[in-house]
Amino acid sequence: MFEPVDAAEVPRFAGSQNFFRLPAVNDLSLLDVALIGVPFDGGTTNRAGARHGPREIRNQSSLIRRINANGVSPFEKLRVADFGDSPVNPINLLDSLKKIEEFFQPVAAAKVIPISAGGDHLITLPILRALGTNSPVGLLHFDAHSDTNDTYFGDNKYTHGSPFRRAVEEGLLDPKRAVQIGIRGSYYRHTDFDFSRACGIRIITMEEFGRRTPDDVIAEALDIIGAGPAYLSFDIDSLDPSIAPGTGTPEIGGFSAREAQGMLRSLRGLNIIGADVVEVAPPFDQSGLTALTGATMMFEILCAIAAGRG
Amino acid sequence: MFEPVDAAEVPRFAGSQNFFRLPAVNDLSLLDVALIGVPFDGGTTNRAGARHGPREIRNQSSLIRRINANGVSPFEKLRVADFGDSPVNPINLLDSLKKIEEFFQPVAAAKVIPISAGGDHLITLPILRALGTNSPVGLLHFDAHSDTNDTYFGDNKYTHGSPFRRAVEEGLLDPKRAVQIGIRGSYYRHTDFDFSRACGIRIITMEEFGRRTPDDVIAEALDIIGAGPAYLSFDIDSLDPSIAPGTGTPEIGGFSAREAQGMLRSLRGLNIIGADVVEVAPPFDQSGLTALTGATMMFEILCAIAAGRG
Amino acid sequence: MFEPVDAAEVPRFAGSQNFFRLPAVNDLSLLDVALIGVPFDGGTTNRAGARHGPREIRNQSSLIRRINANGVSPFEKLRVADFGDSPVNPINLLDSLKKIEEFFQPVAAAKVIPISAGGDHLITLPILRALGTNSPVGLLHFDAHSDTNDTYFGDNKYTHGSPFRRAVEEGLLDPKRAVQIGIRGSYYRHTDFDFSRACGIRIITMEEFGRRTPDDVIAEALDIIGAGPAYLSFDIDSLDPSIAPGTGTPEIGGFSAREAQGMLRSLRGLNIIGADVVEVAPPFDQSGLTALTGATMMFEILCAIAAGRG
Amino acid sequence: MFEPVDAAEVPRFAGSQNFFRLPAVNDLSLLDVALIGVPFDGGTTNRAGARHGPREIRNQSSLIRRINANGVSPFEKLRVADFGDSPVNPINLLDSLKKIEEFFQPVAAAKVIPISAGGDHLITLPILRALGTNSPVGLLHFDAHSDTNDTYFGDNKYTHGSPFRRAVEEGLLDPKRAVQIGIRGSYYRHTDFDFSRACGIRIITMEEFGRRTPDDVIAEALDIIGAGPAYLSFDIDSLDPSIAPGTGTPEIGGFSAREAQGMLRSLRGLNIIGADVVEVAPPFDQSGLTALTGATMMFEILCAIAAGRG
Amino acid sequence: MFEPVDAAEVPRFAGSQNFFRLPAVNDLSLLDVALIGVPFDGGTTNRAGARHGPREIRNQSSLIRRINANGVSPFEKLRVADFGDSPVNPINLLDSLKKIEEFFQPVAAAKVIPISAGGDHLITLPILRALGTNSPVGLLHFDAHSDTNDTYFGDNKYTHGSPFRRAVEEGLLDPKRAVQIGIRGSYYRHTDFDFSRACGIRIITMEEFGRRTPDDVIAEALDIIGAGPAYLSFDIDSLDPSIAPGTGTPEIGGFSAREAQGMLRSLRGLNIIGADVVEVAPPFDQSGLTALTGATMMFEILCAIAAGRG
Amino acid sequence: MFEPVDAAEVPRFAGSQNFFRLPAVNDLSLLDVALIGVPFDGGTTNRAGARHGPREIRNQSSLIRRINANGVSPFEKLRVADFGDSPVNPINLLDSLKKIEEFFQPVAAAKVIPISAGGDHLITLPILRALGTNSPVGLLHFDAHSDTNDTYFGDNKYTHGSPFRRAVEEGLLDPKRAVQIGIRGSYYRHTDFDFSRACGIRIITMEEFGRRTPDDVIAEALDIIGAGPAYLSFDIDSLDPSIAPGTGTPEIGGFSAREAQGMLRSLRGLNIIGADVVEVAPPFDQSGLTALTGATMMFEILCAIAAGRG
Repeated sequence: MFEPVDAAEVPRFAGSQNFFRLPAVNDLSLLDVALIGVPFDGGTTNRAGARHGPREIRNQSSLIRRINANGVSPFEKLRVADFGDSPVNPINLLDSLKKIEEFFQPVAAAKVIPISAGGDHLITLPILRALGTNSPVGLLHFDAHSDTNDTYFGDNKYTHGSPFRRAVEEGLLDPKRAVQIGIRGSYYRHTDFDFSRACGIRIITMEEFGRRTPDDVIAEALDIIGAGPAYLSFDIDSLDPSIAPGTGTPEIGGFSAREAQGMLRSLRGLNIIGADVVEVAPPFDQSGLTALTGATMMFEILCAIAAGRG
Repeated sequence: MFEPVDAAEVPRFAGSQNFFRLPAVNDLSLLDVALIGVPFDGGTTNRAGARHGPREIRNQSSLIRRINANGVSPFEKLRVADFGDSPVNPINLLDSLKKIEEFFQPVAAAKVIPISAGGDHLITLPILRALGTNSPVGLLHFDAHSDTNDTYFGDNKYTHGSPFRRAVEEGLLDPKRAVQIGIRGSYYRHTDFDFSRACGIRIITMEEFGRRTPDDVIAEALDIIGAGPAYLSFDIDSLDPSIAPGTGTPEIGGFSAREAQGMLRSLRGLNIIGADVVEVAPPFDQSGLTALTGATMMFEILCAIAAGRG
Repeated sequence: MFEPVDAAEVPRFAGSQNFFRLPAVNDLSLLDVALIGVPFDGGTTNRAGARHGPREIRNQSSLIRRINANGVSPFEKLRVADFGDSPVNPINLLDSLKKIEEFFQPVAAAKVIPISAGGDHLITLPILRALGTNSPVGLLHFDAHSDTNDTYFGDNKYTHGSPFRRAVEEGLLDPKRAVQIGIRGSYYRHTDFDFSRACGIRIITMEEFGRRTPDDVIAEALDIIGAGPAYLSFDIDSLDPSIAPGTGTPEIGGFSAREAQGMLRSLRGLNIIGADVVEVAPPFDQSGLTALTGATMMFEILCAIAAGRG
Repeated sequence: MFEPVDAAEVPRFAGSQNFFRLPAVNDLSLLDVALIGVPFDGGTTNRAGARHGPREIRNQSSLIRRINANGVSPFEKLRVADFGDSPVNPINLLDSLKKIEEFFQPVAAAKVIPISAGGDHLITLPILRALGTNSPVGLLHFDAHSDTNDTYFGDNKYTHGSPFRRAVEEGLLDPKRAVQIGIRGSYYRHTDFDFSRACGIRIITMEEFGRRTPDDVIAEALDIIGAGPAYLSFDIDSLDPSIAPGTGTPEIGGFSAREAQGMLRSLRGLNIIGADVVEVAPPFDQSGLTALTGATMMFEILCAIAAGRG
Repeated sequence: MFEPVDAAEVPRFAGSQNFFRLPAVNDLSLLDVALIGVPFDGGTTNRAGARHGPREIRNQSSLIRRINANGVSPFEKLRVADFGDSPVNPINLLDSLKKIEEFFQPVAAAKVIPISAGGDHLITLPILRALGTNSPVGLLHFDAHSDTNDTYFGDNKYTHGSPFRRAVEEGLLDPKRAVQIGIRGSYYRHTDFDFSRACGIRIITMEEFGRRTPDDVIAEALDIIGAGPAYLSFDIDSLDPSIAPGTGTPEIGGFSAREAQGMLRSLRGLNIIGADVVEVAPPFDQSGLTALTGATMMFEILCAIAAGRG
Repeated sequence: MFEPVDAAEVPRFAGSQNFFRLPAVNDLSLLDVALIGVPFDGGTTNRAGARHGPREIRNQSSLIRRINANGVSPFEKLRVADFGDSPVNPINLLDSLKKIEEFFQPVAAAKVIPISAGGDHLITLPILRALGTNSPVGLLHFDAHSDTNDTYFGDNKYTHGSPFRRAVEEGLLDPKRAVQIGIRGSYYRHTDFDFSRACGIRIITMEEFGRRTPDDVIAEALDIIGAGPAYLSFDIDSLDPSIAPGTGTPEIGGFSAREAQGMLRSLRGLNIIGADVVEVAPPFDQSGLTALTGATMMFEILCAIAAGRG
């Protein structure tokens, strides 16, 4: 088991800059969970900056300790370490998709669960390609946006607004086992959700969320996704920008941190084969609060996986 | 009908800097709703800066799309465009009041509904003067402060702390049809609310709001205001400063964005003849979050008007 | 009675920089409550900066008026003034503890209630020493962290993570009459709460808080603490960092401002002999929002004391 | 003699918030120099904020010690203290001019030299009115702008762009003994400098300054101004915005701090009867560097006066 | 002739958001100079953000008036207006190069001189392609970096580090008539300047600049470039980051604003057929100072062209 | 030889966070120069924050390439790597001094030259103790302050204002071979420089520097220090705060970046046995510019050592 540096021995501002101040480990055979940075934001259609996300999330993750407030102690249950950054090509989108997929392939082959720090939401697509099993996986997706648009700026298919449409089209995701929670942004055309509706993705808008309880919503989601392998994707803009201002496409009216933490602590039974926290954009995050929130969400996801190991 | 620039063709950081990236239109005969900047903060008794509000709200409004999350599509129902900025005089308060009133008179005469971006809250007074119909109008007012003080710094009657007292005194507002929601700031004297009480303004403090539901509160407000013409004034400081820090007189403990959006989406039946979003002060808004919130509130108000058009 | 400067005569940005723009008073015989700055952060194990807290809290307190939103008018019931800053030694921790204790001794001797602005949480220890009565006092403690750790960096006993353990050990606090609300941060070791449990401190975690109502929680706390003398310690990081980002050890998922204000307005019957608001760290508070929140919490505490005076 | 608080006893972040941490003194008979805040920016035609200047300059002045780098020790030669803020009326320009003039009249009558912290540049006009002697005084003026425009926004005569024209017209300044150094901003009309030329003000543009040495320029200025009473006005925007970004009308290409300090240390023989440092606008000064620079300029001016006392 | 809005009538914070508050003009037959935004930063290898440059440069350009400090009055000599933004594709580099070239082709065909606001430095390549005359043009290039690298991240030829190599290879630039001033950044390989040396580009490093006078350097540059058509490219990172911090690749030790202004005011005789100011990255420019500097450089270049018209 | 990561393969925002993206090396036998972080600011009497310096300097050092602008290629001449952070104790000054000294002892014993990133200036003392040879060493010291004060806050001898007095007293430094350049801050008492004068330290104030050339000043310094072993200490506040605002004790009027770089490139013949760059305080450095400047200074010092190796 790998342990974070002890903050009562080495202060948090000193020493390791790895995720949660864990060791850097390159040998997949030693790991159950690999924490990975994917510093790519070339799919961003408006405000770039998520390329700087992994470094700042690592930096802020020094504020997090070993045992979660609810008693879950992930580093005692799982072998977790910083597996480094995926290669990317900041000036070539398609080359980046290829590089990211190739980087995650051995992780997937080794049955190590990747928890990735983006990068923009397009990174989920090559990760899903790498994770690709014989059959499509389920999806638990927290976001202000559905990210199932088709093309931008002509016929460009790969942007941070389209990964889940592409993933369904490519047979990576099973839309019948896909749930999106927190959707609330204004949208472009009346047809924007036709694809999702047609293929059966369950969208729980923020308006609906506001009328139900988080427990209720998560119970439904777990029921839909079932026991099969599932991917968890957490867009930081699902949170209210009061707690996560540093993101490319903020939408007011999102989750409070407590709501998000509550939902992530209720995922018992979800069979997570990979996860990510995306769209933390440090140039728009003067206080570092968004990166801290992103780091905390990674920790909560890690705890959810650990809790599932009973 | 006027349409925002399509962000899938022209990126949000490029091209138009108008409200919601709509066209600039000067011909009132072409409009149902005029989006207007009123860059005046000369009524501010403490921290000025709201004069920069219209420009930054326009800038951040580029993040908003065409159809609201609840399906309301205002640009299909209403002819809406950017009508520009009202003239102001930053070094002469009374001249500014006159210039603003004169700018809004033809808007009112053309039966075009103005949605204004302030500027400080004093701008509501000359707008109401211009809107002035034969009889006083109703008021739906979201704010941390009642803004019914009398005089400041001697006998100065016109400040951002006094517009609603002046408007009642001038017969522009019907206090019996006026509701203020979110009032919570500390105050100066035990007599501060005497005027409101005496004339019958209904004040729903944040303490009361916290004990009721937003739906319940809005239902009461709509009942009080009735079907007659009404003005909607939204002070950005009604929101919690966690979501709207960039304002001159922040008061912690305000509405969440979701509560405010929920209320604005429940205004069916309100006969809005004009509206404003005021007190966004960009120099105190390093992240731009407050201006984004202000732009979103303008969009929600626009949608409320559109929804009322059935 | 001392009165804040009238903001309708002297603008808030001018004149007095004292707490709430009250007079500076050095004669304890004239006071019921002394507002005191304790600009010391030498106990901080990670991000220092709370030494600048008193100055910025004073600065932001200029936004607060005389009567609280709930009608409580503290300056009419209590003689309150700015008693200045405690001496500190920024390069010598033990000397600072001594200086602070000595500064508070005459305050305690005069039966004046100190409301202090920190500084980091270690300042509570010397204040409690100075307040030291014949028997241990009760504690109402709002915080993300329990602050009952033992030693850091070897055998260093005095840090901002350990004041309440030290206070219990020294017989200053009665753990059976101590309640901590809002505890939620991740922690280091499974034994971290053994001390608290063993001595009987009641910990209400944020998870528990989320399942109950604030009224219910406060009712239990008041019941535990009882009618005896009690100290109230408010760590700004008990609040969500969306409203209080400027602190050394932020933990997402905290109280909203409204929840905190609601609790502080429900303290009828609590026999407060001293209070503090700590861990406001201006270098991490670009907008000043955290200092404003800290000032507001001081005002709410003052009102709670005033309300208790009937 | 009054002394700043000793920073080796009371840390700079604690205690006094007065200018240079000097005592507050209200008795003019005890003073040779009065440090005065004039928190008024109602004459600002674009970006307001200088109203917050006095408070932030005081705050940053805590970084300054007792003896200047060149050995001048002003507090040993002059009785200097913080005389407080002038009354102002933030919503009434003419009332502010009146209040400021009245505040400075007893200072002038007592033959105490005021060094003022603005506020925008319009404050110089009422100060000159108060200082008004039987004959017009000389002027040493550091600025990016000549501030001799006539009217704005119609026929408004009093703005921060016009004080020196007004002062000449009112007979307060002797244009033949007036020198402006650092003028460089772009301008509106070919006639903008006609008034200055006609009345004989000597303008040393930044282009000319760049071709000469600071010593040479100051020698000429002292020669023009001569031995009679003179006022020194230092607009912070005379400095390059790299060192003073926080100002309402920044113009790149200004003085370096060293050039400005060098000039102020060369003023031997200038008969200064009053001085100001204006246009420090904290809302545009995120780092506090501009306020620190403003405080340092006040200290250099103080030292220039002290040096003249030999 | 087109005129900026008069700031003595419409305040700078109100109304037009065009470059220098000029009209927007789409008819090339009405123009001598077209001010154009090119909001593309897809060639950026590290810190993106220059896509937001045109909007912020326009915003800050409101601070600039009509006549330069040296008396040059460009709007009286040249027909200048805001020609809008070039289309770009933020997720497709090659498509962007094509779109930009196509946008500039009619500008070039109409013999209108474009002054462009970037965007990153790669935008110069498609502009040069559009300007392409029968023979290669000269180049006056201010920059911290030579930008003549070959490929990045494999064999990617088009980045903001390679435009001038590509332009020489494509026959767009005549390296014998090309001068680069201010080069100072550390570099990768001993061979990094081989290309430049081989083809004859004259590099004046900052070290050499520091040993000569700006006048001397410009005289040499004008001599090398001669009277033929020339392009002027100004990378904002040629300036010291003290005056221009908001850029993707800052290098300390650059030009002061005064040095840069001095050089641009000395370009008599240069036959400028196009110009740009690039690499202003607003997300790294909290104060707006870099955008103001960029706007000022655009104005100085405009004045240089105007001055050349006698 | 160790090489930085190639930024044309791995983008600067990805991968290594070590100094200059060099490998982390713990084996002193492999090194000529060790780059070391000393994250301690417990000696700071006013604004702390330099504890965060090493992490941010490492972060910003990713902007620096392999070969200096003047052609010096340090990584080809010297074996350089990131040796990690020294242990420190943020709540115990004397323990920190001991830990730092012990950490540097094996470095010194291995004859590896440490270049340290502070931390406040007190760290120089334990480093000198560790380097301690049989005889006192020379000193080249760039600073706004002489840092030869005696005691603070009573009889506290160890602060960031006193390291060089202590080092002389302890026989670590030879004052006759010590030169301080850039001294300019105001000071407390007429006797403040008595110690320096008495023991023979050569102080070149900024006023004197301004009258001479940098080359001339360095020539004198090298002459005084001679060929014996010498320590180079670079306080970031020696630079003008326009280029280095993020420091605890800024003093306007400092070196430009070019002057500092010029001096550091002229040190031929100086026998450097250790060096540091101190007082970079990230909490006061919103833009990261100060940390970038600090990283560049470390690189220049490294190049100076490499250049000395011929």
